[in-house]
Amino acid sequence: MRLSALALLLALPALRADEGMWTFDNIPVQKIKAKYGVALDAAWLKNLQLATVRFPGGTGAFVSRDGLVVTNHHVGRGAIAQVSTAQADLVKHGFTAARRSQEIQVPGLELMMLVSMRDVTGRVNAAVTPGMADKDALTARRNALGEIRRTEEAKTGLTCEPVVLYQGGEYWIYRYKKFSDVRLAAAPELQVAAFGGDPDNYTYPRHNLDFALFRVYENGQPYKPEAILPFSAKGIAMGELTFISGHPGTTYRQQTHAQMVYARDIGIPFQLRSMTRQKAALQALSATSPEAHRLAADAIYGIENSYKRLSGQLLGLAKAENLRKVETAEKALQAEVAKDADQQARVGASWDRVAQAVARQQALLKESAYVAPGRVALLGHALNLVRLADEEARPSAQRLNEFTEGNLKATKARLLSPRPVQKPVDATLLAAGLQEAKDELGAEHPFVKAMLGGQTPEAVAKAAVEGTRLDDPAVRKQLAEGGRAALDASADPMILLAKRLDPFNRAIRKQVEDEVTSVFTEHGGRIAEARFKAFGKSLYPDATFTLRLGYGPVATYANGTGTKAQPFTTYMGMYDRHLGWGGNAAAAEEGAWTLPERWLKRQGKLDLATPFNFIYACDTVGGNSGSPVVNVKGEFVGINFDSVYEGQGGYYVYDAETKRAVATDARAILEALRKIMDARHLADEVLGK
Amino acid sequence: MRLSALALLLALPALRADEGMWTFDNIPVQKIKAKYGVALDAAWLKNLQLATVRFPGGTGAFVSRDGLVVTNHHVGRGAIAQVSTAQADLVKHGFTAARRSQEIQVPGLELMMLVSMRDVTGRVNAAVTPGMADKDALTARRNALGEIRRTEEAKTGLTCEPVVLYQGGEYWIYRYKKFSDVRLAAAPELQVAAFGGDPDNYTYPRHNLDFALFRVYENGQPYKPEAILPFSAKGIAMGELTFISGHPGTTYRQQTHAQMVYARDIGIPFQLRSMTRQKAALQALSATSPEAHRLAADAIYGIENSYKRLSGQLLGLAKAENLRKVETAEKALQAEVAKDADQQARVGASWDRVAQAVARQQALLKESAYVAPGRVALLGHALNLVRLADEEARPSAQRLNEFTEGNLKATKARLLSPRPVQKPVDATLLAAGLQEAKDELGAEHPFVKAMLGGQTPEAVAKAAVEGTRLDDPAVRKQLAEGGRAALDASADPMILLAKRLDPFNRAIRKQVEDEVTSVFTEHGGRIAEARFKAFGKSLYPDATFTLRLGYGPVATYANGTGTKAQPFTTYMGMYDRHLGWGGNAAAAEEGAWTLPERWLKRQGKLDLATPFNFIYACDTVGGNSGSPVVNVKGEFVGINFDSVYEGQGGYYVYDAETKRAVATDARAILEALRKIMDARHLADEVLGK
Repeated sequence: MRLSALALLLALPALRADEGMWTFDNIPVQKIKAKYGVALDAAWLKNLQLATVRFPGGTGAFVSRDGLVVTNHHVGRGAIAQVSTAQADLVKHGFTAARRSQEIQVPGLELMMLVSMRDVTGRVNAAVTPGMADKDALTARRNALGEIRRTEEAKTGLTCEPVVLYQGGEYWIYRYKKFSDVRLAAAPELQVAAFGGDPDNYTYPRHNLDFALFRVYENGQPYKPEAILPFSAKGIAMGELTFISGHPGTTYRQQTHAQMVYARDIGIPFQLRSMTRQKAALQALSATSPEAHRLAADAIYGIENSYKRLSGQLLGLAKAENLRKVETAEKALQAEVAKDADQQARVGASWDRVAQAVARQQALLKESAYVAPGRVALLGHALNLVRLADEEARPSAQRLNEFTEGNLKATKARLLSPRPVQKPVDATLLAAGLQEAKDELGAEHPFVKAMLGGQTPEAVAKAAVEGTRLDDPAVRKQLAEGGRAALDASADPMILLAKRLDPFNRAIRKQVEDEVTSVFTEHGGRIAEARFKAFGKSLYPDATFTLRLGYGPVATYANGTGTKAQPFTTYMGMYDRHLGWGGNAAAAEEGAWTLPERWLKRQGKLDLATPFNFIYACDTVGGNSGSPVVNVKGEFVGINFDSVYEGQGGYYVYDAETKRAVATDARAILEALRKIMDARHLADEVLGK
Repeated sequence: MRLSALALLLALPALRADEGMWTFDNIPVQKIKAKYGVALDAAWLKNLQLATVRFPGGTGAFVSRDGLVVTNHHVGRGAIAQVSTAQADLVKHGFTAARRSQEIQVPGLELMMLVSMRDVTGRVNAAVTPGMADKDALTARRNALGEIRRTEEAKTGLTCEPVVLYQGGEYWIYRYKKFSDVRLAAAPELQVAAFGGDPDNYTYPRHNLDFALFRVYENGQPYKPEAILPFSAKGIAMGELTFISGHPGTTYRQQTHAQMVYARDIGIPFQLRSMTRQKAALQALSATSPEAHRLAADAIYGIENSYKRLSGQLLGLAKAENLRKVETAEKALQAEVAKDADQQARVGASWDRVAQAVARQQALLKESAYVAPGRVALLGHALNLVRLADEEARPSAQRLNEFTEGNLKATKARLLSPRPVQKPVDATLLAAGLQEAKDELGAEHPFVKAMLGGQTPEAVAKAAVEGTRLDDPAVRKQLAEGGRAALDASADPMILLAKRLDPFNRAIRKQVEDEVTSVFTEHGGRIAEARFKAFGKSLYPDATFTLRLGYGPVATYANGTGTKAQPFTTYMGMYDRHLGWGGNAAAAEEGAWTLPERWLKRQGKLDLATPFNFIYACDTVGGNSGSPVVNVKGEFVGINFDSVYEGQGGYYVYDAETKRAVATDARAILEALRKIMDARHLADEVLGK
């Protein structure tokens, strides 16, 4: 079944622009050719695919014949921190290996290159026999996919990962070559890589040298990649077409209109209000002393970061045109479904079912938000300790999600992590959370009564946080290993509080799972199925942290200050903002726009007119960090590191007017390597000299 | 009657921040001292008052002992254009008088200095006798004020203007010394003065050298001002307190909550939708040829400018907190009124009456918007011609507002202005306007039927615009002077169309006047009266284009891109944006970010780190253009030229979070005079060297 041309047009208005995160087996080459006159051939695409690598949580690319890989500084930051020492803080001061022998191996860092993909949809679906119950079919598919994966790994010697696209429309095995000897070659200072700090995050104009260079080794020798993206010395210009290959993580674009309206009117505003309360509480703490300010800074930044991302999403959802597009597409699909009696029987009621579940989600919102440990680290630890023994004793399928076989290891790792807990921060957040629960659920709500026991939120929080020893990882380890008995014997006040929380939290989680999540899964799946039947691969699948291609020109947009954004920034802009904020002496806003000394001393050496960052109309989301941006020749012209605030609605709906990705220009990297970072040899290498 | 401290606090939440446009007889010196530790004395205030001058539509200040006056380039632009010649376009190329003898006199340019003010409230109110009807009281007050003015002028030899403050709470005579010999001394190129053009208007970060220097002469000699504001070579810094003296034009802060809700939900969105249609129509015209693009550019810019200002206002009104403040203050005032039976009888019902009139305003909105000539210049001319003879024959009080004695001269001047009319633009706007009227009022609406006469909007517009000769000012003059007979004889199709429009337009205007405007005037006046009784001069009066003082520190704000705005920009930022948009070669966006050649050739001479523009938390609106910004010593540190988009809601409600004014830094002016404009002698002069 295919839609008529008209229905297709109605359903896909957004595709008139450069929407899409396309899988490499299904690049819209005709569409690109028609719009831009650029014919991508198989060799060009294969080269881009093989030159792209996956980092943990991000993307990178081979840029030299001797295995240099470029990624974002913020993608490589963990690795750079890992190879730092007390004497040499490479995150703060940057690093350049003058010779290859000085490159620093990062133990445990693994990069993945997608060698090939195999469509196994037929084989997976063959595992389902007619008349099989839905639940059994799911298991049969899962087992088949697991079996195919094992066979593939044995056959190819590659790392094989199952990939589910189009919410079950396609099943694939992606085969990766894994690189396990990765060494740090060069990185600028954090202060230049993340210039503008948290305030500038998600914004533009930007001035971030957000790159780091690693080198891949095999058998102790620099790896010779099959494919590379050589740096373009010429760079890119306004209006020129770019391509991005990378691993976009998650999008919600297949949610129904009702779900998005909920996010816009209820879900996100609720979260923002709650964060505003938490932030106010932490700011009050912060104002009490310089030490409190230091302790609270991280938590405040965390809230501000989430706040900005969510309010950006809200901005997109609030734009009437965006949700109209979703509604139009939904109605077109419903009309198409209605033409086929079988389809109608299976999917026709699904939108209403989702809408009913949304109503339940709204009804349960407050309880599901407040009857939980929230951002209080100690209460989270305590709750996990309270549950660990019981949950481990159950079959995996009957456990709470974070204790299932797939997740248990990560949960235990978090529980035993040496990451310090700030007691004053936890006391503040716990008191604020209990107060909010009391205000919103009412003092007579059983959960509120159980948690407060007649005391004030402050008193409960103070007693639990001051009295607990769970801030010590060793104490948590003891309790985790002591099983049921140790737990029963514990008089730790945070454990006692968690025991009071536990039954309420289990109950509301079960209710949300039964009345909301399971409906979204089942009926969202049926809708996805109908959409795939109607549109097939003329649409791209939602993001799954697997390799995708995007395309679009370098382009301005009307930004939130009321003007059009400059397509490029230059090094002048960085110094302009540094000076405009009063320089290192003022160190305003926690020093967000300060600069390392050598960037001030060597300023005169830099060509300040060098293009620094730019914006371009490719469709990206988180996970695209570190993605190479290439020109039509397949040359590296920049590295993606962010996308703009006004376009964060793209998590839900693509909006051609505001969706802009932000990249560090290749020319800025070359200039920095040569003039500031004492790395002329690396600049020559990435230029193929 | 004074409010209790608590009620005052409730009613004035915004005054916790640096809200206010204060008259010089009522500067809140105690408040400033309490908050900033700065004690302003009478001499300091008098110096600032006497150093400030009023320009037509803006403000300026004496900055040297030899009568140099600084104002904005955009305030002086008309004057600069006036003294330009075919050979020397001083707006485009800038100007510097190397010697005083080269300074160019601007015929007709008059500056006004406020010498003193006299409170005549008692004398004005004494003209009202007990038992006088409202209407007679109004006339009595008006006559008394006119008489006092004449007496004052005769007595002082100064230009005296009546000023009504607090919507009638106070009556003043402001006495001005008038300067009529004003000469252009120096001005930069338009492209640097208005760098960023229309896109950057109302935005920040900015990079505008928006200043010009004039010199006042008396008796052929440079005038020696009583008071000057010498340039500060040191400048101002983040967090430092600033003061602004100038002439804010109009604010709507005394509107009722119902009126503001209407503006937010109905009035402004309606205007924005209408402008969107007009802009789309003009863009379609613009796309037809380069010539059409040129012709339509001004009209499109005009719409974009209004659109930005209104959407900025909407942004402020849409912020829930802002209207909550208005509602809280309104309820506090209502409660206060209710305590006094007489007050309650006079004002108690006024808020409801205004709300009822708002409902009528909404009911009449479409007709009042569409049954009018709108932006169609030729139809506007035609309508004025159709009405001129009839209106002039009536007593002034019975005429339409634009034909009353006070307004007739300006109306005739517009009618006979040689300003060219672009026929294709008018045809487009007329067709679009008729189409919108048809869509929104319906094809059967009597006005629509009368205007279209069965034809399409395009056909009617085409026939009227192509056939008319009213684009020729001589033809308009002939008709204006020919009286009733000439008009009756005219077969000009635009005149015929205007005759069809006339009765409908008169009817709807009368209805709006009777049911809406008169209620706003009467009951808005009573509310203002009650407010003045309650708060007196602890509040500042709404803006009236008379001299006011504002104060507030240099301060960042969270801008619409999601980051915090840098308090200062530098010359580096100007070159950054120039380059980031591709420079003069690309001339992107109609060349908004291009630079004059000498700014490129002499770039190496400039200290690029010089502070260029800055933002500060003074309360301003249009009319403050060209206002001097001074430090606590009363030294000139910058010249106000704009305020930010996100704070345009300040027309209605002051919002401390977003209200930021934008100034050109005094140091940037000095640097430009010395290094680019060949005007070192003027830099020395304003520094008092």
